[in-house]
Amino acid sequence: MIHQNVSTRKIFAKNLRKIRVEKGLSQEALADLAGLHRTYIGSVERGERNISIDNIERLAKALDCQVIDLLRGNK
Amino acid sequence: MIHQNVSTRKIFAKNLRKIRVEKGLSQEALADLAGLHRTYIGSVERGERNISIDNIERLAKALDCQVIDLLRGNK
Repeated sequence: MIHQNVSTRKIFAKNLRKIRVEKGLSQEALADLAGLHRTYIGSVERGERNISIDNIERLAKALDCQVIDLLRGNK
Repeated sequence: MIHQNVSTRKIFAKNLRKIRVEKGLSQEALADLAGLHRTYIGSVERGERNISIDNIERLAKALDCQVIDLLRGNK
């Protein structure tokens, strides 16, 4: 099996931003929907945060997508 | 979109145990491979831990699977 070259954190960050923008949401709007802080969303999108599975779930629900949609990477 | 009824934490726990057992690994063997503690693996498999994305990645690498394989749930 070929492992992802890019860290999962970076993959998550990229997917989060992509899906958020596709949904027409600002970081602040997503933060409100997810019950998280805007600066936290920003740092997650920069790959700075070791986000937990519970917060991953909150973001997926706020974006109306599946958790795995946020974790699909280029192999 | 239909959201997962079961929490992502529980889905992860179930998949982790299933793939670990399929690979013929004990919790201790997986812990050694991932550089984590055996009791930590046990608590993750019981859904007690709000595991971080970095540790999810470590477990996927130790199991030679993709992160999303550990997060696929029944819709």
